[in-house]
Amino acid sequence: MITLKSYLRGEWVEGQGEGKILVDPTTGEPVAKTSTEGFDFGAAVKFARDVGGPAPREMTFAERGAVLKQLSKAIHANRDALIDASILNAGTPRSDAKFDIDGASGTLAYYAGLGKKLGEAKWLTEESEQLMQGARFHGRHLCVPLRGVAVHINAFNFPAWGLAEKAAVALLAGVPVISKPATATALTTFRLMEVLVETGALPAGSLQVICGSVGDLLSHLGEQDVMAFTGSADTGLKLRGLDNVLARSTRVNVEADSLNAAVLCEDVKDDTYQMFLRDVLKEVTQKTGQKCTATRRVFVPASMIDRVQDDLKERFDQLVVGNPAHKDVRMGPLATEQQLRDFRAGIEKLIGAGATVVYGSATEVELTDADPSKGYFVGPMILRADDPGNADAVHEHEVFGPATTLMPYENADDAVEWVARGGGGLVASVYGDDRELLSKLVLGLAPFHGRILMGSKKIADQAIPPGLVLPSCVHGGPGRAGGGEELGGERGLMFYMQRCAVQGDRALIDKLFVTED
Amino acid sequence: MITLKSYLRGEWVEGQGEGKILVDPTTGEPVAKTSTEGFDFGAAVKFARDVGGPAPREMTFAERGAVLKQLSKAIHANRDALIDASILNAGTPRSDAKFDIDGASGTLAYYAGLGKKLGEAKWLTEESEQLMQGARFHGRHLCVPLRGVAVHINAFNFPAWGLAEKAAVALLAGVPVISKPATATALTTFRLMEVLVETGALPAGSLQVICGSVGDLLSHLGEQDVMAFTGSADTGLKLRGLDNVLARSTRVNVEADSLNAAVLCEDVKDDTYQMFLRDVLKEVTQKTGQKCTATRRVFVPASMIDRVQDDLKERFDQLVVGNPAHKDVRMGPLATEQQLRDFRAGIEKLIGAGATVVYGSATEVELTDADPSKGYFVGPMILRADDPGNADAVHEHEVFGPATTLMPYENADDAVEWVARGGGGLVASVYGDDRELLSKLVLGLAPFHGRILMGSKKIADQAIPPGLVLPSCVHGGPGRAGGGEELGGERGLMFYMQRCAVQGDRALIDKLFVTED
Repeated sequence: MITLKSYLRGEWVEGQGEGKILVDPTTGEPVAKTSTEGFDFGAAVKFARDVGGPAPREMTFAERGAVLKQLSKAIHANRDALIDASILNAGTPRSDAKFDIDGASGTLAYYAGLGKKLGEAKWLTEESEQLMQGARFHGRHLCVPLRGVAVHINAFNFPAWGLAEKAAVALLAGVPVISKPATATALTTFRLMEVLVETGALPAGSLQVICGSVGDLLSHLGEQDVMAFTGSADTGLKLRGLDNVLARSTRVNVEADSLNAAVLCEDVKDDTYQMFLRDVLKEVTQKTGQKCTATRRVFVPASMIDRVQDDLKERFDQLVVGNPAHKDVRMGPLATEQQLRDFRAGIEKLIGAGATVVYGSATEVELTDADPSKGYFVGPMILRADDPGNADAVHEHEVFGPATTLMPYENADDAVEWVARGGGGLVASVYGDDRELLSKLVLGLAPFHGRILMGSKKIADQAIPPGLVLPSCVHGGPGRAGGGEELGGERGLMFYMQRCAVQGDRALIDKLFVTED
Repeated sequence: MITLKSYLRGEWVEGQGEGKILVDPTTGEPVAKTSTEGFDFGAAVKFARDVGGPAPREMTFAERGAVLKQLSKAIHANRDALIDASILNAGTPRSDAKFDIDGASGTLAYYAGLGKKLGEAKWLTEESEQLMQGARFHGRHLCVPLRGVAVHINAFNFPAWGLAEKAAVALLAGVPVISKPATATALTTFRLMEVLVETGALPAGSLQVICGSVGDLLSHLGEQDVMAFTGSADTGLKLRGLDNVLARSTRVNVEADSLNAAVLCEDVKDDTYQMFLRDVLKEVTQKTGQKCTATRRVFVPASMIDRVQDDLKERFDQLVVGNPAHKDVRMGPLATEQQLRDFRAGIEKLIGAGATVVYGSATEVELTDADPSKGYFVGPMILRADDPGNADAVHEHEVFGPATTLMPYENADDAVEWVARGGGGLVASVYGDDRELLSKLVLGLAPFHGRILMGSKKIADQAIPPGLVLPSCVHGGPGRAGGGEELGGERGLMFYMQRCAVQGDRALIDKLFVTED
């Protein structure tokens, strides 16, 4: 059993004491331990600010992008070892592990490309505007990197991508990072960080990683620092409400619970219908349903619900669940025992709200090459709630596993209203070929979502499923989803920058602060 | 003594009970009373969402802009009556009253113009981007109005502009407003709202105004609502930490305390030096120093500090303080007795931190046509702190009145460090003609400010003073200043909108969601 180290102040360090045990969710066996006891987190914050910040700020976007490119390449070169770590500690079949790890290298590569495009500048400049009658007196907004540290707190489900997607944006903006993976699946993050450190590409202090508890880290955050969190709404609430965070206006970005919905339009057929089925299957079962973007609610026209239910069952029947290391297996266990408990309790909650289980079971599942008494296994489940207007928990309680609830609707207004009862989500998907209906649904749902996938026949063969987060589109959602916004290409940089309107002599502003390409 | 009404659910209503008394700060005499006791604030929020939201959302930007234009014109047409209300209840000389009222009509006119420019669309669309290999599958970010209400809580110092600048942006975005002026100076806001209602231009429920306490209003805010607050850091902290606001990710924008600094560069002379003196005079005394953008700290090269002190004294000597209705008077009283007490306590705090008073007095002032024993008068004051590195309160405590602290510096690094000790500010100003020095100061200060005025000789005759907030530039600042961002032209609309990435068939997205000009 290995002991994970944290990477702080340019060194690999081990905490004191017993530490926490990380297990293999397929067998429940311990695979690693880690501790952060005795670490001086205040010193880590100071190191980030004093050592980690100045170097990236002095680099151009192109130079920062070149660093990201090296990191991306190194991850890709060590892909197999990272996949092994993910299978072992996260219970992911190879395809799910790749989703996480290729997502990490891909996002770094995307931001490397953006850095190249932004070129020789060190900060962003917006358009110049004349402010008064005098033609010389102009205003120009500069977006400059903050002088603090970005603390990233990630969820257990993406031990590689979580670190990489947040770090890529912060580092490209010119802000140093302290990243904390969820302890339960930190083995993959630890291995990833070994790879990144090994490149020698990271400027000193620009990236620190804490494998384990963050201790008093957050109490050190101030006016120029930011915190980005992905995880449960409860934890997000606690972090956002920290005294110093509130008092010092520390910027906070939260990605939390999300009752993502798919809406099938009336009269959908052929390619669009197949796309819908394919996406639902993927978004219920990929990573054993442990994605913040997984589809938790499926709204279909009342006239089609029985057929949809049958078609989904047929597809779910073909899914092989079991040991993620086995070549035939497509879905592994949940990541932890706690997740298993929460999943089962969640299903009970949905049932209490009027949903019935129409496929699968929260307690029994047929496994390939795995012992159900040891690992944290569940099979895919379909629930059905025939009265969506009276099923609060179905709209409000996120069951973080391979389950979704089918619901009938009669008209588009009802569908929009019920989807909106999720209180704000990361992504919704709508499938149809009737333009008027698509327009009504998308415009009705847009205020409540950070992203909407609009499935239709002409892109049925080239679209991605709704759960895939692309670096070019924003990721986040209002309300229950946390009210945050990450990624989205250049948009994502702003969280790490201060926009400052510089007013003065136009020629002088341009000369001093605008970098010619 | 008149009784102010509130405008709720399309009607003028009066609260029950005694209410609060508004006074004339020049004499301490009561001029109005107001109460909101018995109001159903939950119903006001519901009215905004259900009645106030749909109509603006169905209007184009051009149509919303046309509404704003009517409001702007009506304010201008009733300028004199509004100025009278401001003189009576806010103690502002005519020029200070105009600053507030013309600011209101000017900001509405600016956003009316932006509406015209944005044209026939009802939401904003960003650039389309290809997402994968397939050429048809694109992503396009839409920015659509939120479905909730915007609650605006304004400060006592801008009873007209405060309402107008926030409402202009929200209404142009398509979001209904409930606006609450500070009770002490609400007479001007009440008169302003009478003028706006009288136009008949406001869609039903799009603007409600509460003259007095907000009762339980804020407890009704949820996922699709926003709150924008201007006022003290203490109150901002309380609002931002409300349980429902945190739990439901209600967006909050805060403009709070700000220790705005002016920095004079070495060897400045002639026009740039005169500009500096003129700006400091204006930013210490305009509205009796009761502006969030007033200059609280002045950093000058050690070699020049005695001369600057003498030159400022000479200018301050010419300022006539007294009855704001008197034609010679340029500075009136503070707005309330509490402000006077806070001002005097604040000066003591600065003295306790090592500053000495080198001009004026917190207790005595020569007045024109006013009785010092009745009104809330103070004269302009200059303090001096010769050891800026050891004068914490000078950098941290905002004295909200006509006082500023002069401090010497030896090199630009020190100046930047000490300005930054303000913990984040709304605006800084630097005056110089040495390019290298200007560049160093502006780039050093930018992460800590929402705006920087760079004074130099070629724009000395056409620049505005740093305290003037223009609708085209962002207004807000990190940290102590609240971490907010308002205005800035189109940038300001985003606070009231949800950005949603729509992914799908490019041609279909363009057809359904993009309005051709």
